[in-house]
Amino acid sequence: MLEECRERICRELDKTVDFWLKYSHDTVHGGFFTCIGRDGKVFDELKYVWLQGRQVWMYCRLYRTMDRFHKPEILEAAKAGGTFLRKFARIMGSGGQWKCAFCLTREGKAVKIQRTIFSECFYVMAMDELSRATGDTDMQLEAEQMMEQLIYWVQVDSSGLGRPHLPGDVPTNSMAVPMMLLCLVQQITEGRGQKVAEKYRDLGNWCVQQILQHVQRDGTAVLENVSFDGTELQGCQGRLQNPGHALEAGWFLLQYSTQWGDKELQKTAISKFVEVPYQSGWDKEHGGLFYFLDVDGNCPTQLEWSMKLWWPHCEALVAFLMAYQQTKKPELLDMFSQVYEYTFNHFPDAENGEWFGYLTQEGKVALDFKGGPFKGFFHVPRCLYMCERILDDLLSNKA
Amino acid sequence: MLEECRERICRELDKTVDFWLKYSHDTVHGGFFTCIGRDGKVFDELKYVWLQGRQVWMYCRLYRTMDRFHKPEILEAAKAGGTFLRKFARIMGSGGQWKCAFCLTREGKAVKIQRTIFSECFYVMAMDELSRATGDTDMQLEAEQMMEQLIYWVQVDSSGLGRPHLPGDVPTNSMAVPMMLLCLVQQITEGRGQKVAEKYRDLGNWCVQQILQHVQRDGTAVLENVSFDGTELQGCQGRLQNPGHALEAGWFLLQYSTQWGDKELQKTAISKFVEVPYQSGWDKEHGGLFYFLDVDGNCPTQLEWSMKLWWPHCEALVAFLMAYQQTKKPELLDMFSQVYEYTFNHFPDAENGEWFGYLTQEGKVALDFKGGPFKGFFHVPRCLYMCERILDDLLSNKA
Repeated sequence: MLEECRERICRELDKTVDFWLKYSHDTVHGGFFTCIGRDGKVFDELKYVWLQGRQVWMYCRLYRTMDRFHKPEILEAAKAGGTFLRKFARIMGSGGQWKCAFCLTREGKAVKIQRTIFSECFYVMAMDELSRATGDTDMQLEAEQMMEQLIYWVQVDSSGLGRPHLPGDVPTNSMAVPMMLLCLVQQITEGRGQKVAEKYRDLGNWCVQQILQHVQRDGTAVLENVSFDGTELQGCQGRLQNPGHALEAGWFLLQYSTQWGDKELQKTAISKFVEVPYQSGWDKEHGGLFYFLDVDGNCPTQLEWSMKLWWPHCEALVAFLMAYQQTKKPELLDMFSQVYEYTFNHFPDAENGEWFGYLTQEGKVALDFKGGPFKGFFHVPRCLYMCERILDDLLSNKA
Repeated sequence: MLEECRERICRELDKTVDFWLKYSHDTVHGGFFTCIGRDGKVFDELKYVWLQGRQVWMYCRLYRTMDRFHKPEILEAAKAGGTFLRKFARIMGSGGQWKCAFCLTREGKAVKIQRTIFSECFYVMAMDELSRATGDTDMQLEAEQMMEQLIYWVQVDSSGLGRPHLPGDVPTNSMAVPMMLLCLVQQITEGRGQKVAEKYRDLGNWCVQQILQHVQRDGTAVLENVSFDGTELQGCQGRLQNPGHALEAGWFLLQYSTQWGDKELQKTAISKFVEVPYQSGWDKEHGGLFYFLDVDGNCPTQLEWSMKLWWPHCEALVAFLMAYQQTKKPELLDMFSQVYEYTFNHFPDAENGEWFGYLTQEGKVALDFKGGPFKGFFHVPRCLYMCERILDDLLSNKA
């Protein structure tokens, strides 16, 4: 079965890379189109910065670490994306600190800035990975400088993000923030030696602690938003669960536990961030993972709560397979198989390649584009890439 | 058939008023709970300001204009809501101008401010209507002062709203803004004599012109966002259609055309803002009005585009019935009947009263709460109230 999975995953990865190489490059203004229809047609010329950064990162990662993608056209595409990002994405924010735009026109003019850290995070990922692919140390420096800015916003003073502090606005540890920073810590330190790893060790541990605070209700639930001292918040915000996000945190924690040989963390990651979100998040009636749930069983207020999105399924595949790789527990492989069946039966578009992103609760395609404001060349290829590598490892050790 | 409709509508209005009187009042801190579950249970104590203002307005309107609601408990509820709003909703914005919060804690502390004008608009509606119900001229003055602030933001300088101007951010005539202002013009001037009507005449005409600019594609489509000189904008934003919103604009325009005896405007309102959105927005497969559409037939990027929401159906009922009242064209009554059938078969909750707000494309209840961040005591009762009055008129003229 694993052999067959590996074949399918490998084929899907090739098709996905082909799709984006073929349809997303803007050879006139640089950068990548990110709104791409079912058949490859660009339906909006806006360039979303999260997705620019992620695409640069993904191309470089494939180029650097997989022989069959070590091709000049992939490196060139990544470099063109990086040039566009460096030229246009960074702008001076209202607080006098560098920010990255959220969205640019085709020509690179800023359309929107978010008052969060995520555009900047994907900028760091892109620059760090591009510096590795090209050997350009300026880019590495830029990644590190932006990383310092991010740490300042998260740990010292967030006022530069531009969000006013309001008396009723309870400070919130939102899972996305420590997850994203942990991802960046792993990105920046990977293979750069003990000294760099030690430099970011405290930050990594802080991220892990912040993530672990989201385990609530005697360990039976992962909540998306908690207080900074790890207690539950009131209302919908406090009861919100995002199973796909918890599963993504799960494999981030598994990677970190491996890096530092932390067996306790590995155990927690699997039981709380892999098994628990699957138990609570899997739709027993129609299959697939819910997007949002309320831990008390109220109806979430997000209109899309019951939809099945591609990315939670991507994260689940990586989480289950990595957890199985590390433990060889057969029930984790069973979970992987279940998600694999659902995912490959519902998301890939056999006709035009790439995956649909948004299904109804019942599994019907609800939005048929391949790229949109939040879907780009990232979750699908990252999942396929991670799974292919883990499967290679599992299959070669077995042989 | 109209007699039967009137009965049903009258009954639904009573049930809806009962529901909110029973479940939404916060007798401890004042104001209204707005997040109310299927069975009436408050599932979040946050108080959304749009909905506070709308509820005050709706109570006062019913109290003032319908005998059976001219009861002390309804006036008291409205006054309690008004007191809460005046005490807590207005806060000093970053630009040194008064803003209204978007969301408050149960106790009235500001949680979130939007960088738009809508909280302030509903504040004006509430204060003006409350001043009419109570005779309190301070409130009327407050409404007028906030109205001046709104006009300044919309027509002179929007920087006080706090949104940075970015070079790629194309100035957009979003239909919501002139619609909302036209609604306020009608609110503020109603029954206040010729002098007040004349004072706001230019603004009213400006709103109408701004709304009419949304008719595009040789009159075959109403687009939600256009440029300020009335040309189509690029991309998804420019192609967006919101049929329920166009229908709501339709009956606002019909009211305005009646007030000023403008037959040309009446004709345009019916053909472009009532018939066109119905043609493009009605789901011929499953019934009901789509939430969003793309005029070129691309898939919208809003995840909820194909869902059936309660409020477009409310607006459609008012628009069709008012258009029929003014013209007696049978095809408009047919459209009303079709929407009436769909609406009354899908939205009301026979078990607990009030209406569900959010259905899947196929018509299944997708979110089962009665009140949430954007659903309160407003669209359902306003629709029932308007329809009951129009039906009374139609039935009495017939008799």
